[in-house]
Amino acid sequence: MSSQATAKVNPGVQAFLQDLKGKEIDHVFFVACGGSSAIMYPSKYVFDRESKAISSDLYSSNEFIQRNPVQLGGKSLVILCSHSGNTPETVKAASFARSKGALTIAMTFKPESPLAKAAQYAVQYDWGDEAPAINTNYGVLYQIVFGTLQVLENHPKFEQAIDGLDKLQAVYDHALQKEAENAHQFAKNHQKEEVIYTMASGANYGAAYSYSICILMEMQWIHSQAIHAGEYFHGPFEIIDESVPFIILLGLDETRPLEERALAFSKRYGKKLTVLDAKNYDFAGISEAVKGYLAPLVLNRVLRMYADRLAEARNHPLTTRRYMWKVEY
Amino acid sequence: MSSQATAKVNPGVQAFLQDLKGKEIDHVFFVACGGSSAIMYPSKYVFDRESKAISSDLYSSNEFIQRNPVQLGGKSLVILCSHSGNTPETVKAASFARSKGALTIAMTFKPESPLAKAAQYAVQYDWGDEAPAINTNYGVLYQIVFGTLQVLENHPKFEQAIDGLDKLQAVYDHALQKEAENAHQFAKNHQKEEVIYTMASGANYGAAYSYSICILMEMQWIHSQAIHAGEYFHGPFEIIDESVPFIILLGLDETRPLEERALAFSKRYGKKLTVLDAKNYDFAGISEAVKGYLAPLVLNRVLRMYADRLAEARNHPLTTRRYMWKVEY
Repeated sequence: MSSQATAKVNPGVQAFLQDLKGKEIDHVFFVACGGSSAIMYPSKYVFDRESKAISSDLYSSNEFIQRNPVQLGGKSLVILCSHSGNTPETVKAASFARSKGALTIAMTFKPESPLAKAAQYAVQYDWGDEAPAINTNYGVLYQIVFGTLQVLENHPKFEQAIDGLDKLQAVYDHALQKEAENAHQFAKNHQKEEVIYTMASGANYGAAYSYSICILMEMQWIHSQAIHAGEYFHGPFEIIDESVPFIILLGLDETRPLEERALAFSKRYGKKLTVLDAKNYDFAGISEAVKGYLAPLVLNRVLRMYADRLAEARNHPLTTRRYMWKVEY
Repeated sequence: MSSQATAKVNPGVQAFLQDLKGKEIDHVFFVACGGSSAIMYPSKYVFDRESKAISSDLYSSNEFIQRNPVQLGGKSLVILCSHSGNTPETVKAASFARSKGALTIAMTFKPESPLAKAAQYAVQYDWGDEAPAINTNYGVLYQIVFGTLQVLENHPKFEQAIDGLDKLQAVYDHALQKEAENAHQFAKNHQKEEVIYTMASGANYGAAYSYSICILMEMQWIHSQAIHAGEYFHGPFEIIDESVPFIILLGLDETRPLEERALAFSKRYGKKLTVLDAKNYDFAGISEAVKGYLAPLVLNRVLRMYADRLAEARNHPLTTRRYMWKVEY
């Protein structure tokens, strides 16, 4: 790693990568819940496409504990995330993984939280509209992922990934400006909708999942599902007609043809389509080798603006809850 | 394998297992689309819980091809399924996997189909209400899965699995009788609903997924999502109130506590709940070692009856389509 790249890497990630040297890891488990799990989908995609010898799985925290994979053990790396660091299932998952001899690293916004204490390594990320892309949860996770691949497999894309993350905030700013008016239109057109589907594939599926379960269902009480763009043609597409709204994501990764096919069909039979296409954003200076992996981060950031506008138009703030943190569960 | 168990195993599976001896396999890929993919979720669960050294992944066929996992190669086993044997994505996935040197086995109802020809091994399964459980797609897949584990890892549950599959038809018959009136009630109560969610975890999630995307969305044009019972509390549960219908599955596998927790919460804030609990069915004579793996097959069979009754009540036959097989896509 060049010292220039190193300087941009989170100190907690640096310490972890230093200790990782010489360790034998044959499986990575991505373990979190809800929105914190959704940010991990692109990282599973990276491992599938880039890792020669490390297999990987992604589980919701309680599923991970109860499923209790036989191969979880001394050669496992478990990457966990909880924003509050207080999600009981994820804290328990960290302890569970350690009890099996796995190496554990937790990402959180709260460095003194139970999760930070339960894992061997804890990394704090930044949060909010002012946080630079490279320091957010998505950014720090990619630092861990590409750093792990470099340390364990001498994988060559780490510097490109760090450089790309470093330049990503400019991509966000440009994309947000470009989409600002579209977000207003989306909010105006969808404020009365009771169902809104999202759709994507590959590296972008997690962003669709997050928007569906966290923004629409949790924060807006709108019915939804994140449809996989390939699965669409084997069931879900029968639901579309001119009355059913879809948000369709197009990324820059290898599965883009699936998303393009789903969009082309939806255009023929649907009418209420909102398309976010990463090709319309300016990735200037970012290496082709990592563009496909970074596109979902941009799509996710733009979707957040779409959520803000929708919440305003519906007069239903994104902070509204009826059960979460309010009742026992 | 005892000769008694062998006699019950599909001849195509027997031939495959014979040839598998001595081969080195370190990864299994489950590859199919829609309903044929959904039947594979419990098999991924089996591998996670039972295999000491073989990792596994499950992908929709086009996602598999485009994602192009680096580890797909000479030590990979790719299990594919298409009912017609004619699903273009899955046929292409078989050729793609072979071109990478992987061992391929295809399940289909049509032994002369393109998929049967594209894979090295092809296994025909039975179909329809009269087909004995052990010979259906689910049954044959478990023969492959537990057989593979026995051949490659000397895993001890193969005979229990075959014996369980052999006794499963009696469980189906009993469960269908027990649920017949409930299915009528469900259909009557839900015939006007525009949204119906399904929910499950672990080995049972695939049955919830299949009911959501194939039965409700594809065959009934009802909005839906299969919610993971653990993820429920990290977003989706904010959607429930007395007006929102949920079908909640309770299986017999290790993740049952997740499903029980989701049900308990839903009972407090929801009203339109349909609960299918495998504990109410009679698994007499089936080994405890495989009950949790077989429960989703029973739940799936009962759900099919719920689909039949719903289609009748809505006067919307399960064969109705507006796009599938009718227009270009």
